[in-house]
Amino acid sequence: MAVGPETFPQKMFEVAGFELGTASAGIKTPGRKDVVLMRVCEGASVAGVFTQNAFCAAPVQICKQHLSEAPARYLVINTGNANAGTGEEGFQDALATCQSVSTLCNTSIESVLPFSTGVIGEKLPVEKLVAVLPDAKAALSTDGWNDAAEGILTTDTRIKGASLQFSYEGKVITLTGISKGSGMIKPNMATMLGYVATDAAIAPELLQRLLTDATNCSFNRITVDSDTSTNDSCMLVATGESGLEVSGSNQELFNVFADALTQIMQELAHAIVRDGEGATKFVTVKVESALNQQEALKTAFDIAHSPLVKTALFASDPNWGRILAVVGRAEIADLDLDALQLFLGDVCIVSKGGRDAGYTEEAGQAVMDGEEILIRVVLNRGDVSETVWTTDLSHDYVSINADYRS
Amino acid sequence: MAVGPETFPQKMFEVAGFELGTASAGIKTPGRKDVVLMRVCEGASVAGVFTQNAFCAAPVQICKQHLSEAPARYLVINTGNANAGTGEEGFQDALATCQSVSTLCNTSIESVLPFSTGVIGEKLPVEKLVAVLPDAKAALSTDGWNDAAEGILTTDTRIKGASLQFSYEGKVITLTGISKGSGMIKPNMATMLGYVATDAAIAPELLQRLLTDATNCSFNRITVDSDTSTNDSCMLVATGESGLEVSGSNQELFNVFADALTQIMQELAHAIVRDGEGATKFVTVKVESALNQQEALKTAFDIAHSPLVKTALFASDPNWGRILAVVGRAEIADLDLDALQLFLGDVCIVSKGGRDAGYTEEAGQAVMDGEEILIRVVLNRGDVSETVWTTDLSHDYVSINADYRS
Repeated sequence: MAVGPETFPQKMFEVAGFELGTASAGIKTPGRKDVVLMRVCEGASVAGVFTQNAFCAAPVQICKQHLSEAPARYLVINTGNANAGTGEEGFQDALATCQSVSTLCNTSIESVLPFSTGVIGEKLPVEKLVAVLPDAKAALSTDGWNDAAEGILTTDTRIKGASLQFSYEGKVITLTGISKGSGMIKPNMATMLGYVATDAAIAPELLQRLLTDATNCSFNRITVDSDTSTNDSCMLVATGESGLEVSGSNQELFNVFADALTQIMQELAHAIVRDGEGATKFVTVKVESALNQQEALKTAFDIAHSPLVKTALFASDPNWGRILAVVGRAEIADLDLDALQLFLGDVCIVSKGGRDAGYTEEAGQAVMDGEEILIRVVLNRGDVSETVWTTDLSHDYVSINADYRS
Repeated sequence: MAVGPETFPQKMFEVAGFELGTASAGIKTPGRKDVVLMRVCEGASVAGVFTQNAFCAAPVQICKQHLSEAPARYLVINTGNANAGTGEEGFQDALATCQSVSTLCNTSIESVLPFSTGVIGEKLPVEKLVAVLPDAKAALSTDGWNDAAEGILTTDTRIKGASLQFSYEGKVITLTGISKGSGMIKPNMATMLGYVATDAAIAPELLQRLLTDATNCSFNRITVDSDTSTNDSCMLVATGESGLEVSGSNQELFNVFADALTQIMQELAHAIVRDGEGATKFVTVKVESALNQQEALKTAFDIAHSPLVKTALFASDPNWGRILAVVGRAEIADLDLDALQLFLGDVCIVSKGGRDAGYTEEAGQAVMDGEEILIRVVLNRGDVSETVWTTDLSHDYVSINADYRS
């Protein structure tokens, strides 16, 4: 139950200086891989983007604090419990987790970053989690990506990863990453969970900037159901082991690297949409020639969130009236209805305020019958374009969320 | 498939000076009542509130224009076709409808107000519509409310009405109204369709103010699926036949009348929510002690629109973590998490940033098992409260909107 073929790479290239180890603590489901430990080599840089939800979970708060206090050496992730809405007790539980990693791995508590995902509002079973940390430590390996991709899942039906290498001046740079998420997906400065590592050398401030920019055209442009999680986080690790340094935006390598990072993060973000809860369609919503970014984004997200558009997509129904109605309520000031055009794929559906003269229901139906659908709104009033990706709204979305306590 | 018992009144009190006639034109479904004509006596005042959707349909545009040009004498409504997204042709079709009424009833075209509801983007079959106008005219009667309530429905499963009388200084004032709507419900200054008549005498400007105020605590506080229709309209007619005048806000009668009007319009608005597409729950979301109206309303509507909250409601699952996550993303500046309280009915669920010490799952479950559910968020940072009403998100919502071309 996901759109399109499996996208997890056949080969996840290892990143020198970055190891992953996975264990099973039975936090929610006995026998399931649910604890992941990641080790970052000394001298590496680590950047992060986090949920903007005011109720950001205890581990997110501690993660942000630790990241500002010391170079990160270990990341510890559990699924099955988000440790969110848990008050002071949740804070102490997240700290206790960090303390256990600190003792086990002989590092400072501030160098440990905690992450949790799963059910909100229930106490984290810390004892179960820390009991398997030695297993996770023993499993640490640069080729631990596949197990880790499995170990961070919750309602996901697929593991999600992306990996690439490129050569520069005779040396090779690797980028490899994993992500998870399929519901409560409307990230706001970050995805559900994402971890990307590279062996390029990049100073922390520049790394943060690269991550933020790449997030803004990947994880911050997807939505499944308009809900922003309390635990969204995306981390980018640069180990420097390749011997190549990305040093600044006036450098050719900077642009090559930024493009590669954007590609990896879009693949990870799209994988989340393809695995969106109940998804049967992968939908690209593109708003073109808007006056400014705000109106382009709001229009695109309003379309992507509309239950009526999403149910029409589920039904493969070229019901363009519903899309038009959303554009009309998107609060675009002084919208010229006659100038606007609406396309399904390459098929022009609306022009001059009504159905395009050349439109046929068959042409629209042919686009909607596909698994991958492009909705394109051309406002013809400026030069700003924005793209977001989303899913349809199916019976299975209702079933999954009416049956699962997430 | 609607929440709670039928609420249509046993007795719809007639309003002297206001007549309704219903006919069947087979615009979308053969044999269905789908054309309603309403006649307003000379000297009456008519006020209206309309959709803020930029793609407001041709009849809405003409209705607003005519209302500004001449005293309204006739309202003509069709269902089965919204005449929206129909460009210049749609405009001409709506005018042709008005012209037919004008000729048939010997009145000016500007005194005729047109309304359409139904499928968007298809040409209005004007010939079918005008062919039955003589039938509708012949049926005009002050007791035509029940047929008219049926004649304005689309996907609704129930007719919707409200009616009351009160005495003042030995005379009686009557208010009676009907509404329709069950999907694409997030009115913005008006509902889908609503028609309320009273025999009080009220000058046009004051009538408009009374209607706007009552709309802002009724139709503008409901949502089923966050989508705003291209055709929303609500009209208020004051015939003056009671011999009592509502003259200004310093008058005792003004307050009595305003309360009665709000009551009628809330009943009509609630009837729309109860009949919301696929609805199994009638949900009241109240946000209390907010700093200002904007944050109270945004928080309440964000909760009411969240697919994750709505599917939890469908499942009768007291999944308060999802509600908390929405409050956290509602962009409340400097929200004090520890001060906030969350209640399901009378049951305190969240306090001090986590699950309330006295909360039990059984107590939450008991509230969620009901058909009528109150979600109450107490922000404890100001003195503004706002209430909105909504439904859950069920399998039937998906079925209705994946199967029906609306």
